[in-house]
Amino acid sequence: MIKKILIANRGEIAVRIVRACQEMGIRAVAIYSEADRYSLHVKKANEAYCIGSDPLAGYLNPHHIVNLAVETGCDALHPGYGFLSENPELARICAQRGIRFIGPDADVIHSMGDKTMARQSMINAGVPVTPGSNGNLADLDDAIEQAAAIGYPIMLKATSGGGGRGIRRCNNEQELRQNYHRVISEATKAFGSAEVFLEKCIVNPRHIEVQILADSFGNTVHLFERDCSIQRRNQKLIELAPSPQLNDEQRNYVGSLAVKAAKAVNYENAGTVEFLLDDQQNFYFMEMNTRVQVEHTITEEITGIDIVKTQIRIAAGEKLPFVQEDIQYRGFAAQFRINAEDPKNGFLPSFGRISRYYSAGGPGVRTDAAIYTGYTIPPYYDSMCAKLVVWALSWDELVARSQRALNDMSIYGITTTIPYYQNILQHPEFREGSFNTGFVEAHPELINYSVKRHPEALAAAIAAAIAAQAGL
Amino acid sequence: MIKKILIANRGEIAVRIVRACQEMGIRAVAIYSEADRYSLHVKKANEAYCIGSDPLAGYLNPHHIVNLAVETGCDALHPGYGFLSENPELARICAQRGIRFIGPDADVIHSMGDKTMARQSMINAGVPVTPGSNGNLADLDDAIEQAAAIGYPIMLKATSGGGGRGIRRCNNEQELRQNYHRVISEATKAFGSAEVFLEKCIVNPRHIEVQILADSFGNTVHLFERDCSIQRRNQKLIELAPSPQLNDEQRNYVGSLAVKAAKAVNYENAGTVEFLLDDQQNFYFMEMNTRVQVEHTITEEITGIDIVKTQIRIAAGEKLPFVQEDIQYRGFAAQFRINAEDPKNGFLPSFGRISRYYSAGGPGVRTDAAIYTGYTIPPYYDSMCAKLVVWALSWDELVARSQRALNDMSIYGITTTIPYYQNILQHPEFREGSFNTGFVEAHPELINYSVKRHPEALAAAIAAAIAAQAGL
Repeated sequence: MIKKILIANRGEIAVRIVRACQEMGIRAVAIYSEADRYSLHVKKANEAYCIGSDPLAGYLNPHHIVNLAVETGCDALHPGYGFLSENPELARICAQRGIRFIGPDADVIHSMGDKTMARQSMINAGVPVTPGSNGNLADLDDAIEQAAAIGYPIMLKATSGGGGRGIRRCNNEQELRQNYHRVISEATKAFGSAEVFLEKCIVNPRHIEVQILADSFGNTVHLFERDCSIQRRNQKLIELAPSPQLNDEQRNYVGSLAVKAAKAVNYENAGTVEFLLDDQQNFYFMEMNTRVQVEHTITEEITGIDIVKTQIRIAAGEKLPFVQEDIQYRGFAAQFRINAEDPKNGFLPSFGRISRYYSAGGPGVRTDAAIYTGYTIPPYYDSMCAKLVVWALSWDELVARSQRALNDMSIYGITTTIPYYQNILQHPEFREGSFNTGFVEAHPELINYSVKRHPEALAAAIAAAIAAQAGL
Repeated sequence: MIKKILIANRGEIAVRIVRACQEMGIRAVAIYSEADRYSLHVKKANEAYCIGSDPLAGYLNPHHIVNLAVETGCDALHPGYGFLSENPELARICAQRGIRFIGPDADVIHSMGDKTMARQSMINAGVPVTPGSNGNLADLDDAIEQAAAIGYPIMLKATSGGGGRGIRRCNNEQELRQNYHRVISEATKAFGSAEVFLEKCIVNPRHIEVQILADSFGNTVHLFERDCSIQRRNQKLIELAPSPQLNDEQRNYVGSLAVKAAKAVNYENAGTVEFLLDDQQNFYFMEMNTRVQVEHTITEEITGIDIVKTQIRIAAGEKLPFVQEDIQYRGFAAQFRINAEDPKNGFLPSFGRISRYYSAGGPGVRTDAAIYTGYTIPPYYDSMCAKLVVWALSWDELVARSQRALNDMSIYGITTTIPYYQNILQHPEFREGSFNTGFVEAHPELINYSVKRHPEALAAAIAAAIAAQAGL
């Protein structure tokens, strides 16, 4: 069994992994940049090592991190999400240095990271993909010819892209001509690869993704789907499990597609197969994320299965303790990404000191937070500072409880997306469970809410106004 | 439907009821003594009214409270647990003043509060009770004669008693003679009644209680059982649902007994039927609590049913939205009563200012807390300041997760029962799920743990020592 894990990440996912380790009697080793010295994951781990003064470089250096794992006597490494989690290099170095990488094999990470390779694997396995180009594009003429055959609008995508970058929508040939060299240039800079390809553009699809778990004995199961259609500029905001937009037949079908996809690439450990669902109820494979996902929490809520602990057990060579028929879901869950951002100001990051933090509580409420009263959020990282996870027996109860739980959670000193989510919860389309990835863009009025001022903040504002008036 | 509820309570249960109201779109009205001005339930309610400078008198004055409900436009009142929750007078005054009492009828509260009446109802209904005296005792000679017939050890109990008071165990006739007038005197002082009766003493039983819900249409269901055997001097410390000591046959049997008991007295709303389970696997009715219980949370966790919201719906005249067959349980849940007490010092209350509070979080963790960083726990009330509720898919996972969650929760500035519970979780008898109400008394060594000192507290102690040394 694994005895000591280095957590190659920070913030809430690092805290999440520490918790899994503690439940399994495994020592947890944290890493931190100087900016992260007072982060919660550092406080909660059994050991913590500073990886430098640069806020990012240390988290992005696979050699340095694996060295540290070896030096501190770790026998495994958990990459979390983001940072190096989908970098095959980290998995490869771990394998070379005798550290178990808690995730799939480096080759699988690589083949799923290459979008055209992944598409081809899925086509071979009989998993539906969106109509698209035959592999990477040779040149602009090739692009124009293939686009005409597929039909506009089309998406021009970087083969090595991800996270919503290196993607442009082209509504006609003229736009394709305009974007072609731009995307190649972006892709070269961001991903070190000039390869691009085409996919038919599914207009305002729903984003449906399936959690899978696979052990080293060839057992692969799915844990039902998540609906991540509530997103802004390809960044998920609210995730739901199961999707209120699917019936059981669709649910089982997309689940079986995901298992088929994972088996086709001999996938091992936890992964997520992302699909688009169009308005004709067709599912199309989009991509596979070869790591734990931010929104794994809601799948844990409805199935009761601890995904992070299962990841560790799989990496330790254990068999999955269940088969597909054992896995049941109950009720509905939602995850709200509490971001330190100001929705009224273009979702501009709002970092700073948290003067007061009241966690939400009571029935059906789980918080995975990286903050505490007195903590200062450093400006160098992702703006998500907490995840509020809500569970309820029915969809209507979930909506009501989510409103209550968001109200219950108070964070003073910074601006967050909480009031914005309150507005989404009141929107009829959301309440009816009927929305697609165009929802946020279609409803700019959702930023209209009045801001409740904390007495401390109000006092400071009044004092500042008086001082200004008095010419101080 | 109910629109506005006065919450005739304080602390965590008042917060719990506010949360239920918010999920239902009901306005919540809090009451508070001056000592409770900064309590969390006051902050969370929609309106809050001070009920006087005496820390207790206001919470115990049914006329004043119902007047306030009427004056503030409430249409219902929730009594919580403790205080006036089992005082039939409060229910009666509510009925007279047109305020819906969220609980059973005053007559039912009265008949279940009178232990000999309750015993007689259960005997009539065919629910097993412990062998005992034929109603109340006439005098000491009657007591001695009936005790001989029942067999020693016996329990001498005040008919109107409760909460572990007005009870003495007598191992032989001599002890019965010694205790007889003492219990009558205690009962007269504490409960205003000199009535006493006898029950056979079940030595070190397990405490098994069943949650029931009953609507005004005659529908009564049970929500399975809780095991509250981990208690100290009749005060529950850790509660579990379902009991790890029952099989499904026993579970269904005791559930059906509880439904029979509730139906026998035309019970309406939420209630708990408490049983003793002896080492021959016999269940005996102990008493019925005619209110929401502190440990209702764990039943919510395993069934997914919100008990407080269901209480409100029943009081509003709604039908139960489920029948017995619909109610399923999943996994195991535990509740840890986080008490501001020092186990090493005879569980002496440890009130004061909370300098820092980190809530527990992550998978399977729910907190129902009445505290926050900077809050000062007033010395006048129950020492329970938070409930840590943990859920897991299996018993072993529950134990491991509970250890992690207790570790996760940090309260500085006061002493709590957290490290004591960590010791209980490590005890083989607990881990095997094999324990009875004698567990805590049988293991005085559980108070042996080393206390981690918060740096702030340590600094203060060092400063005090230096000051003392310097004669300052």
